[in-house]
Amino acid sequence: MKIGILTIGNELINGRTADTNSSLIAREVNLQGWHVEAMLSVGDDFEIIKTRLHDLLSFTDAVICTGGLGPTTDDITTEAIARAFDLPLERDNDTLAYLQEIFKKFKWTWTENNAKQALFPKGAQVIPNPVGTAAGFALSVQNKLVLVMPGVPSETKRMLPEGVIPILKKTFPQPVPFAQQQTIKIFGLGESAIDEKLSSYDFSAIDVSVGFYPVFPENHLVLIARASSLEQTRQNLQKAVDAVSDQLGEWIFSYGEQTLEEMLAGFLTQKKLTLAVAESCTGGLIANRLTDVPGSSLFFEQGLVTYSNEAKINLLGVPADIIEKHGAVSEETACSMAQEVRKLAGTDLGLSSTGIAGPSGGSLEKPVGTVYVALADRTQTICRHYRFRWDRKRNKLVTSEAALMLLKNYLQEKK
Amino acid sequence: MKIGILTIGNELINGRTADTNSSLIAREVNLQGWHVEAMLSVGDDFEIIKTRLHDLLSFTDAVICTGGLGPTTDDITTEAIARAFDLPLERDNDTLAYLQEIFKKFKWTWTENNAKQALFPKGAQVIPNPVGTAAGFALSVQNKLVLVMPGVPSETKRMLPEGVIPILKKTFPQPVPFAQQQTIKIFGLGESAIDEKLSSYDFSAIDVSVGFYPVFPENHLVLIARASSLEQTRQNLQKAVDAVSDQLGEWIFSYGEQTLEEMLAGFLTQKKLTLAVAESCTGGLIANRLTDVPGSSLFFEQGLVTYSNEAKINLLGVPADIIEKHGAVSEETACSMAQEVRKLAGTDLGLSSTGIAGPSGGSLEKPVGTVYVALADRTQTICRHYRFRWDRKRNKLVTSEAALMLLKNYLQEKK
Repeated sequence: MKIGILTIGNELINGRTADTNSSLIAREVNLQGWHVEAMLSVGDDFEIIKTRLHDLLSFTDAVICTGGLGPTTDDITTEAIARAFDLPLERDNDTLAYLQEIFKKFKWTWTENNAKQALFPKGAQVIPNPVGTAAGFALSVQNKLVLVMPGVPSETKRMLPEGVIPILKKTFPQPVPFAQQQTIKIFGLGESAIDEKLSSYDFSAIDVSVGFYPVFPENHLVLIARASSLEQTRQNLQKAVDAVSDQLGEWIFSYGEQTLEEMLAGFLTQKKLTLAVAESCTGGLIANRLTDVPGSSLFFEQGLVTYSNEAKINLLGVPADIIEKHGAVSEETACSMAQEVRKLAGTDLGLSSTGIAGPSGGSLEKPVGTVYVALADRTQTICRHYRFRWDRKRNKLVTSEAALMLLKNYLQEKK
Repeated sequence: MKIGILTIGNELINGRTADTNSSLIAREVNLQGWHVEAMLSVGDDFEIIKTRLHDLLSFTDAVICTGGLGPTTDDITTEAIARAFDLPLERDNDTLAYLQEIFKKFKWTWTENNAKQALFPKGAQVIPNPVGTAAGFALSVQNKLVLVMPGVPSETKRMLPEGVIPILKKTFPQPVPFAQQQTIKIFGLGESAIDEKLSSYDFSAIDVSVGFYPVFPENHLVLIARASSLEQTRQNLQKAVDAVSDQLGEWIFSYGEQTLEEMLAGFLTQKKLTLAVAESCTGGLIANRLTDVPGSSLFFEQGLVTYSNEAKINLLGVPADIIEKHGAVSEETACSMAQEVRKLAGTDLGLSSTGIAGPSGGSLEKPVGTVYVALADRTQTICRHYRFRWDRKRNKLVTSEAALMLLKNYLQEKK
């Protein structure tokens, strides 16, 4: 089955927003064993939506659309699609009631333009939106299927597997072979190095495709196995995962969708360990990532962002002579920060970062990107030194990742 | 002038790689005053490239292509385009010499398939690639222009302004009407409320388009004026900006591309004021956003993430009876946190947040999303109370925004 993707929005064609929906949809469609023939983006324009949709349908079996379902006047997707097939718009009373209920619940002021979101082309099947006000719809026309979702990526992410894929599966028989996938997350190794290390294994011989998704500062691999039985699919996938583990084991931190901070939260909570953080160059990012995890108050006691030397000395208690002798960006300062924050907070563990995020502040001896991360427990302190070569924000991000990886390796070895 | 974008590669249509080139090209094209009519992605397939290119050219003046220029057998873009116009491939000796020189310089082994990268459709103008081996080309056919670059984003980024845009400018005269744009950033008002407030003004009467771009938790408006003279364009744009200011003034925080934290960094540095931050529910996010700005060490002294009550009392110095009497999530605690962190750090200003980010921790009296942000200077403390209804990460983000807005309003009133 051939599928077309049509993403709609002026923000796409003027380059203000990068289209992430097409890629998301393509991945899912591919996983189901269907084929994406073309992905098209157009602006919020009646004539263009209409002609381009017809054109896409001329060489595909189904078109999945996103965008332009909002309540404002520039959101015209529903009406444009109705016009494309000469269908009137009809109000869906269930959707209207649902919308009004949301507005009531959140005490938003109801304005008449919101009723627009309850209008659908005649004959359309409404696809509920569990995380927003813009419902989607599916329309069967001329033996083809048009499926429409809102453009907000978090909404597409929910509605695609819950609403769209089931309708496609019902309309078009399940393709054989079966497909199974596995994500593997890697930190500390670049794309070409990963490619090189995996080149000795022939994944295609067991019908496994290896997809590569850099998510700075991580690299995610997605292995997809296809075979004619579920059992064979699983076996092949496991063989591929084993091959990747053999080659990249030391750089792999996750076999699944969990984030690094979610894994750490799990380890710390399970081991009943508490943590305090002292940050210099990461400026609060490590604390922020850890507290993104629900329930982090169980292990996260406190964080200190000691940006100035005075803060490091007076607030945190780093001895002034360590900073004087070795500098604020040094192994000694990093270790002292981790030890002092642990003592100050009375926690099991102390984690620290210090470095030069840039763009200024570097020297010949300590260039921009020089960072130290350290971890202290009751008996020992471990420190790692890095030299990163990114811009300020990415230097902060990769340093926070290095600090969290140090903690992760410690917790895993401790078992 | 209407432009089409065609990105080519199996990695795009199977969702393995997100297409970032289309967005990059669209932004640059838009900035030049031209219009992107459609952006299409297809796989490495002769027939599909050929038909889709012809189709795009049928409603555009020029098509910019990327991808499929590598030396391997699956890279077929050059040959597909030559076939599309029945042109033979011809070798460009300068390109061949350049390629062989690169291989010699980097001591790579020359294999014959590399000579493929020196072949171009007859009559094409070669576009040099200063950062890679795959040169691009421009082809004038049927009064239209086809421009081709490699798919590697870092190469597209260089070749677009250096090679492609100059050829487009030479071929198509400076666009009339002139275009001028202005971004206006808003916080605290939803998309439909903005739409409603702006509905009384007829922007189309002065040829100004208004685009909405939600960038959570902000809403960005982009006004684009087009007129036949630069002077008229500027006047119309100013009229539109004035109209938006009249309606939305109190919610606007920026007339430009600056982020909220960049604006604050500017104000604080200019006024020579220093800041310390005490965060509870935002977990380090406020400090992280402020330290994203280069040079933030000039005003940012320190940040405390006092997640537990003990940290609030022992580290920060919030009186225990305030927390006991009013709770950790209260106006009193927020005010005390701002005051204490200011004193502790010896700064001009103290900024604080406390609240329930969720998903758990709420009560009937203080449901999830209840937050307080406070700002203290030498003489006064200001506090704001909110009830947000998002998920944990978005509650954190919108709370950090509310705290930074409180600081921004204070600094602007202070003048």
